[in-house]
Amino acid sequence: MRKLGLLLSRCAAAWKSVRMASSGMARRAPLTNKVALVTASTDGIGFAIARRLAQDGAHVVISSRKQQNVDRAVATLKGEGLSVTGTVCHVGKAEDRERLVATVLNINVKATALMTTAVVPEMEKRGGGSVVIVASVAAFVPFPALGPYNVSKTALLGLTKNLAIELAPRNIRVNCLAPGLIKTNFSRVLWMDKEREESIKETIRIRRIGTPEDCAGIVSFMCSEDASYITGETVVVAGGIPSRL
Amino acid sequence: MRKLGLLLSRCAAAWKSVRMASSGMARRAPLTNKVALVTASTDGIGFAIARRLAQDGAHVVISSRKQQNVDRAVATLKGEGLSVTGTVCHVGKAEDRERLVATVLNINVKATALMTTAVVPEMEKRGGGSVVIVASVAAFVPFPALGPYNVSKTALLGLTKNLAIELAPRNIRVNCLAPGLIKTNFSRVLWMDKEREESIKETIRIRRIGTPEDCAGIVSFMCSEDASYITGETVVVAGGIPSRL
Amino acid sequence: MRKLGLLLSRCAAAWKSVRMASSGMARRAPLTNKVALVTASTDGIGFAIARRLAQDGAHVVISSRKQQNVDRAVATLKGEGLSVTGTVCHVGKAEDRERLVATVLNINVKATALMTTAVVPEMEKRGGGSVVIVASVAAFVPFPALGPYNVSKTALLGLTKNLAIELAPRNIRVNCLAPGLIKTNFSRVLWMDKEREESIKETIRIRRIGTPEDCAGIVSFMCSEDASYITGETVVVAGGIPSRL
Amino acid sequence: MRKLGLLLSRCAAAWKSVRMASSGMARRAPLTNKVALVTASTDGIGFAIARRLAQDGAHVVISSRKQQNVDRAVATLKGEGLSVTGTVCHVGKAEDRERLVATVLNINVKATALMTTAVVPEMEKRGGGSVVIVASVAAFVPFPALGPYNVSKTALLGLTKNLAIELAPRNIRVNCLAPGLIKTNFSRVLWMDKEREESIKETIRIRRIGTPEDCAGIVSFMCSEDASYITGETVVVAGGIPSRL
Repeated sequence: MRKLGLLLSRCAAAWKSVRMASSGMARRAPLTNKVALVTASTDGIGFAIARRLAQDGAHVVISSRKQQNVDRAVATLKGEGLSVTGTVCHVGKAEDRERLVATVLNINVKATALMTTAVVPEMEKRGGGSVVIVASVAAFVPFPALGPYNVSKTALLGLTKNLAIELAPRNIRVNCLAPGLIKTNFSRVLWMDKEREESIKETIRIRRIGTPEDCAGIVSFMCSEDASYITGETVVVAGGIPSRL
Repeated sequence: MRKLGLLLSRCAAAWKSVRMASSGMARRAPLTNKVALVTASTDGIGFAIARRLAQDGAHVVISSRKQQNVDRAVATLKGEGLSVTGTVCHVGKAEDRERLVATVLNINVKATALMTTAVVPEMEKRGGGSVVIVASVAAFVPFPALGPYNVSKTALLGLTKNLAIELAPRNIRVNCLAPGLIKTNFSRVLWMDKEREESIKETIRIRRIGTPEDCAGIVSFMCSEDASYITGETVVVAGGIPSRL
Repeated sequence: MRKLGLLLSRCAAAWKSVRMASSGMARRAPLTNKVALVTASTDGIGFAIARRLAQDGAHVVISSRKQQNVDRAVATLKGEGLSVTGTVCHVGKAEDRERLVATVLNINVKATALMTTAVVPEMEKRGGGSVVIVASVAAFVPFPALGPYNVSKTALLGLTKNLAIELAPRNIRVNCLAPGLIKTNFSRVLWMDKEREESIKETIRIRRIGTPEDCAGIVSFMCSEDASYITGETVVVAGGIPSRL
Repeated sequence: MRKLGLLLSRCAAAWKSVRMASSGMARRAPLTNKVALVTASTDGIGFAIARRLAQDGAHVVISSRKQQNVDRAVATLKGEGLSVTGTVCHVGKAEDRERLVATVLNINVKATALMTTAVVPEMEKRGGGSVVIVASVAAFVPFPALGPYNVSKTALLGLTKNLAIELAPRNIRVNCLAPGLIKTNFSRVLWMDKEREESIKETIRIRRIGTPEDCAGIVSFMCSEDASYITGETVVVAGGIPSRL
């Protein structure tokens, strides 16, 4: 065994002796000529994803339930020279929403399924497309005291698999992002007080709470041609907290 | 429920009405100033990964057991204007190799562990790094008649998790790629005869056998800053064949 | 390595030389003094589970939506000398049911969650209890053309985990059974025609479609003291078809 | 939704009103006429499994590397009226063992594979059989600082799947037990000091460290006819610590 180790070290040595190359190559934006609809995208993870998709060349449609939030997000991204438009997209009147709030499964699972179904015809017309569903690492290892949220996220893992199978013949790929602890309003209680944040960070292998931007790159990747053989899969972005094998 | 569907359609309609944007943005190569050591990289998936990392700006060290294979691969990539060097890196003398062949676990698991350990000090000196281990979808759903191969790939899922935990404090991330059926010499028997290939394709959701290039993008992504909050995770690139939830 | 194999063979030889022992030991029924409520238990898997729990010593409450089905099941089991009673337990009026049919998630996930919550106080009064949720192997690898069913079953995996965590402090364990292809009315289309059945059997490692009885033993086990350190887990009973690692 | 809850409560009420039944049924020992070879069974989990299989009617062959340990275990179980014999079964001479110690993969994975292969012909002669491999919850979520152990346990998950597929045609089932934190010599460091034990228990949903006996029932179940449609599966016995979905 010692010999094996030795030879590998020599191999590693060859590697370490190379000087840093600075190629400075430029790549064409990977999402050029694509249109991206990002729901719930005026804030947090959704906003970071929308910005990143636009930076990567897509025309992005910002969507949310409140006009003023949409306007603000669109203005911000246009100010950065990005190609965006906005649309208000709510799932019903106030009283309906109330009831929906009580049924997280409806919002997280059924709305995702319906939304996907709604955009399929348009994707088909363009020759295919890519859907990225946002679940959570809580789909695998539950967050405490968030039962219905956790269960709805687990259901999204299944929805991803099922939509991937259903839509493959139409050249539409469906994948899933499972973020860990990310610094957003949703997780505010975990990091708003410094002491709490420090103790939370101890449980994460990469010693920091994630940022919305940490979640954006993989979504852009999943939408790009580079991921054209990936469908039905979930990628965890969680800094190494327990997820799954 | 009808209302929900209706409103979502309207939202989808807003999306479909946007004209195709052509931003033509250019991005800096994501791996500029990085050095990549790719083992077993003169052919198949390894070669595609090496090429892609070089295209994305890294200086790549090609490595394999045979000098002439290394020379050929280096020449090819240099001919494409890429920054590469080569090194012969074998795990022992012929007679040792024979014995190792009998113990797939040694090559696939122990050599991977030792190799990682060998490059860690150099990575640390540079302030961190990224390791991508190549397992297989057979780690989750066994390929027929390839028991030891399958088991060694399952072990790599565990190795990924364990190295990720061990190396996180040194700012080294460890992730894993699990390819499905990919057109390489290894899988030749599956696609060398047209009829066989057609019947295999029926079992894959995306109706084609994957290419080595299908595996390269995700490796480049995993090595880039975009993946800086991802560690210990395995991504399946398998066109939608059964893998895991 | 040869030596290792040799010595193990010797060890195996020691084993094979023992004569068959016939201890004829008798065990006390493992569910004596327990009461089991089995929903949807007038037919198929539910009925087989109810019978088995009664055979293992529990008093079983048969429950279903239709009085005559409950009566028939109770009569059958009483005729076998088992301790059972019945109760009609429906989730609403006809028109409500219609709507629920359209929302498998409601029936499979919400009703399971509510039912569990409903029995918790009684379990607590008795010092603890055990809940076994019936999901499906389709939770991991989708059955074709059964999207909403599959997704609801995936959600049940999450529900199991979440309820296990929530109810552990009250000494209530929550586990899950994931049957594969089982000969019931639900799967009739797969086995009613001989040719179809033969081709299905080819895909199952244990060359037969499962029976409801195949699912009953593990439920009894999960409810017994023998499983007192098992909670939040799912056991697949599927004859070796692809499920998960 | 209120109505649903209400009706379910009524259903639960029916259940709670039943009086405790005391059937006092007696079952025939489920492993009567079976012979069980249990390796590493003079202590801890292995010993608890051996005892349980004997209590459930099997003739048990105790096996370990040291004669005196085997003798002691056999004497203990015979003193309980159980049907056992012993055999010393080591994997080589001292110097070999030293080397093996360095390669946990060899002991945990290769020895398990070889042992299974060694007993297959005898099982076949008897018309079939059942193998239960002991992995660990660390196969899914690594124990700190036990890298090689963890990885070898992950490999066992794959070995279980592969052997199950390979041996199904010979009517041999192969399943796997994944214990959590169990009070044995192996885990002594976790519970030998009271304070440590208390803090460990806080992380387990069922607020205690498991016992070897907690692991024995599921092994007996897996070996019994009741599990005849279960193969290739792993059952976690870990009191609800994070494992997998």
